[in-house]
Amino acid sequence: MSPKITGELLRQLRQAMKNCKYFSEPIQAYIVPSGDAHQSEYIAPCDCRREFICGFNGSAGTAIVTEQYAAMWTDGRYFLQASQQMDNNWTLMKMGLKETPSQEDWLISVLPENSKVGVDPWIIAADQWKNMSKALASAGHSLVAVQDNLIDAVWTDRPKRPSTQLRTLGLEYTGLSWQDKITSLRAKMTERKISWFVATALDEIAWLFNLRGADIEYNPVFFAYTIVGMNTIRFFVDLKRLSDPILRDHLQLDSPSKPELSIQTFPYESVYTELQAICAALGPKDKVWICDKASCSLTQVIPKVRETPIPYTPLCLAKAVKNASEIQGMKMAHIKDAVALCELFAWLEKEVFSFLFFLKSQQKGFVGLSFPTISSVGPNGAIIHYRPLPETNRTLTMNEVYLIDSGAQYVDGTTDVTRTIHFGTPSAFEKECFTYVLKGHIAVSAAVFPNGTKGHLLDSFARAALWESGLDYLHGTGHGVGCFLNVHEGPCGISYKTFADEPLEAGMIVSDEPGYYEDGSFGIRLENVVLVVPAKPKYNYRNRGSLTFEPLTLVPIQVKMMNTEQLTQKERDWVNEYHRKCQEVVGAELERQGRKEALEWLVRETQPII
Amino acid sequence: MSPKITGELLRQLRQAMKNCKYFSEPIQAYIVPSGDAHQSEYIAPCDCRREFICGFNGSAGTAIVTEQYAAMWTDGRYFLQASQQMDNNWTLMKMGLKETPSQEDWLISVLPENSKVGVDPWIIAADQWKNMSKALASAGHSLVAVQDNLIDAVWTDRPKRPSTQLRTLGLEYTGLSWQDKITSLRAKMTERKISWFVATALDEIAWLFNLRGADIEYNPVFFAYTIVGMNTIRFFVDLKRLSDPILRDHLQLDSPSKPELSIQTFPYESVYTELQAICAALGPKDKVWICDKASCSLTQVIPKVRETPIPYTPLCLAKAVKNASEIQGMKMAHIKDAVALCELFAWLEKEVFSFLFFLKSQQKGFVGLSFPTISSVGPNGAIIHYRPLPETNRTLTMNEVYLIDSGAQYVDGTTDVTRTIHFGTPSAFEKECFTYVLKGHIAVSAAVFPNGTKGHLLDSFARAALWESGLDYLHGTGHGVGCFLNVHEGPCGISYKTFADEPLEAGMIVSDEPGYYEDGSFGIRLENVVLVVPAKPKYNYRNRGSLTFEPLTLVPIQVKMMNTEQLTQKERDWVNEYHRKCQEVVGAELERQGRKEALEWLVRETQPII
Repeated sequence: MSPKITGELLRQLRQAMKNCKYFSEPIQAYIVPSGDAHQSEYIAPCDCRREFICGFNGSAGTAIVTEQYAAMWTDGRYFLQASQQMDNNWTLMKMGLKETPSQEDWLISVLPENSKVGVDPWIIAADQWKNMSKALASAGHSLVAVQDNLIDAVWTDRPKRPSTQLRTLGLEYTGLSWQDKITSLRAKMTERKISWFVATALDEIAWLFNLRGADIEYNPVFFAYTIVGMNTIRFFVDLKRLSDPILRDHLQLDSPSKPELSIQTFPYESVYTELQAICAALGPKDKVWICDKASCSLTQVIPKVRETPIPYTPLCLAKAVKNASEIQGMKMAHIKDAVALCELFAWLEKEVFSFLFFLKSQQKGFVGLSFPTISSVGPNGAIIHYRPLPETNRTLTMNEVYLIDSGAQYVDGTTDVTRTIHFGTPSAFEKECFTYVLKGHIAVSAAVFPNGTKGHLLDSFARAALWESGLDYLHGTGHGVGCFLNVHEGPCGISYKTFADEPLEAGMIVSDEPGYYEDGSFGIRLENVVLVVPAKPKYNYRNRGSLTFEPLTLVPIQVKMMNTEQLTQKERDWVNEYHRKCQEVVGAELERQGRKEALEWLVRETQPII
Repeated sequence: MSPKITGELLRQLRQAMKNCKYFSEPIQAYIVPSGDAHQSEYIAPCDCRREFICGFNGSAGTAIVTEQYAAMWTDGRYFLQASQQMDNNWTLMKMGLKETPSQEDWLISVLPENSKVGVDPWIIAADQWKNMSKALASAGHSLVAVQDNLIDAVWTDRPKRPSTQLRTLGLEYTGLSWQDKITSLRAKMTERKISWFVATALDEIAWLFNLRGADIEYNPVFFAYTIVGMNTIRFFVDLKRLSDPILRDHLQLDSPSKPELSIQTFPYESVYTELQAICAALGPKDKVWICDKASCSLTQVIPKVRETPIPYTPLCLAKAVKNASEIQGMKMAHIKDAVALCELFAWLEKEVFSFLFFLKSQQKGFVGLSFPTISSVGPNGAIIHYRPLPETNRTLTMNEVYLIDSGAQYVDGTTDVTRTIHFGTPSAFEKECFTYVLKGHIAVSAAVFPNGTKGHLLDSFARAALWESGLDYLHGTGHGVGCFLNVHEGPCGISYKTFADEPLEAGMIVSDEPGYYEDGSFGIRLENVVLVVPAKPKYNYRNRGSLTFEPLTLVPIQVKMMNTEQLTQKERDWVNEYHRKCQEVVGAELERQGRKEALEWLVRETQPII
């Protein structure tokens, strides 16, 4: 890939920074975060402002442009990719390295005295605004809200905000009507004496109303806001989307069952003025709940004394613990995914790569991918989030490690699986690393831990075998997975980085995906989606109860890549039991679907190891 | 133990809460934290205000008294003990249980509208003040600073603040003169553009000046404050303590080598007015560094824009990484401690318990204990911080598990070791639990991990074997250990609780002390003090370098308590290598000291296991 040429764009942006049409005085620095107004992880093309200005298109990164400099901060997953996508106008700031300054420290070191630093208040979270503002103020500078986005001002062919068709989800998938979800949300509000709740996260809104959209690639969500009071529900969305009679019926727009379950609809853009009106009419004891990660813009509408910021909204927490229908759907989705992968792998051995999408699309309830498939050969595997591009693509060979990370959205669930395979003879070092990664994967998957344990306390289990040999990987071990929702969701996860994660509890779903990446040579990752389930160990200390994981992903792990003699008896038992289950569950489905070749491959790949 | 009778005391305190002599209007609640003005962990008798008012004498707990209620918050280590020490006037608030309200939530639920909640601003940390104040304000109440302590007002026989003799430490122990420490502190201040640094933690001040005192039992520190500017050093201490010529010479009080190393001395109490004077004279760019855990009183003297609060002071960080002289001293101290324990254990088998203090005191450089010895038999071992009291004391028997946790201060180092032994035949369950605890101890001690890893990421290693059987322990796995300083010190540790810990680095010293406690039956804990050292695994991923631990404690672990067949080969190798080292290093010292019986015991107890 060749870097984006940004000289002219930066000149225009710096022009805009000086132009008093946008802000009353010239600003000396402009921050371009990577998010949208909903703090979505994946974003729509119209919101890819950071990519537009610097060329780097990874999922995480913040660009800052001053009169003289342009710098972009990203983390270990993206060092290689960012350095290839950005031209010489940009300095890559490698987060996590000791010598890399924070954005605040860097700004303070380069800005002239008394500088103004601008940012779009809609795309910076309230807590980030606060920290940045405080740090700048302590050095005599100020952070200022620039209402018109300056990137948009220089982005002549910026795409429109998507407004795709909305899909309703029935009780057989959701397990709970939106009315029941509203009722239990209000119960939590009453308990905490909260009068209003402002929902800004797109997946929380989709979950609440049992609706799905396709506004953002891979995430079945739609642009909307919701404000829930004790007697009213205000729904902010492009009103053109609400004409479908099935949708109107689902939301009871024309004949609400009860007045307090009547949904008032408003244009998407009017959330700001509506929230202002609500705040102007607050009673003396009224409190407003808003996520502390919500946009600075909305958060600042709420008077400080009325605001009760929370790290995780009640919707985020309720959504994370899947109910029986959702778990059932997730299990089904994973069986389907396994069918497609068995088919692919069986076929791959004979032919060459590329009809996974077609295979998945043949499965019942297939909606789309849950993220762009990562399929990489040899050295490309070492670029953690590598996506095939014509100029770097390599043909599958017998001599290199092949890594495939793919996921799909089915109406009953979301999948995300990574396997690393070799079609020829892996090197001793490749096998050694694969075995360490497998040991880490098993250590997490088989871990038994007490109720109330936070996921980050399990992260080191995934690394211990790699660490012991002086190896590691620069990403977290697992993320929360939505149920026909975003493939990445909070509030739980397994990472050394997230300290504000919520304790794991039965029903939560996370990924377990340790890896190892050897720059310029190969990449290894083993990922299952796993369900948190109660465990029944021998004892039950203080009646706390214990938890463990049940793999939802059921795709064989290539035995050829393992040094089985490096595994303990316990690890070998785990592999055999996992493969037995793959054969039993996916085998039955392959048989039902009449996919003979894939079935033969599955049986061959799941023979017990000794 | 019988509970303290508190009815009359509470009546008097509530009287004082209404008395406008102390605050301009009546206050509706009064908070009694457990700390002193320096946020010390162990405190002097004059500062034991929370114990005085409620009877509970554990190290952690906060009491709150309102007009109608009296409640005391403490954590899992102390539930049993607190319930036994407090009378019916008090409600025990069990922290860490889901149903227990936070102090803020509880206050909001019981207070009448518009209440005033009082607290002594000297003994509440600035960050705690901020959080409590914000929470109360959000519910219409206010937190107010009551300058005279209301507990002192009703505490007629309150002891005086100690002022023990100060001891100077030479370079052979400290490795670095106080002048060099001041110089490198100033270098850090220059780097961060800080003009003044306020030191309030007693161990940081003792470390900085290479001085030790005995004001607080077990902690060789003394009451003092220090304010360091770029050209001045102000030292606040009871001036009567500075008459000793050796001390005057050490601090160069009468003939400073350079003007900027001249120490100005002030009475302890005048720190407040001096800091006020400094702040009044601050230049427009002057910044003041103060720990965000410092007292609210001092912190509020500093104008907000001038204040640069830090979670860990540069002294705290510098002190945590031990230099070669300190490491050497710590190693020596641990050999001495091992000698005393071998002697004790050898003798215990023939006689009955109790001259450990005498034995330690015979070792060169012995100063005192580093904390009260915990020596418990059978069920008392399940009270995690049990101290022998006449009414609950049990004689050592052949039928019960014996736990001893003891530490000492030597001029060259501080020790802290726990062993669990049985003189008769342990039960199968006792052995099973001991073996899980041993596996956890080894998992931490032998762990290899990359530079930059924080201690809390290792905590689960200590628990995995217990968790797998549904067991656990309700305390952290390890704490930082000072070098002839406090046995507990920041900023590192190994705990699921501390998220703000600093990464482990070579030279840091922590304890490794998993345990298991079976209420009403027995307690098991295995504790070594371990040094963080570089590791040299096979690979060196991204040149980060790796770390591991080297045990400083060298006392045999009782083989009789182990189910050796439950140990992996790796774990057995660890035990054998550890015992080999005990025999080699401590054996030589026992021989030198002519302690024949202890030597025979040591050799017997360190035979290899198969």
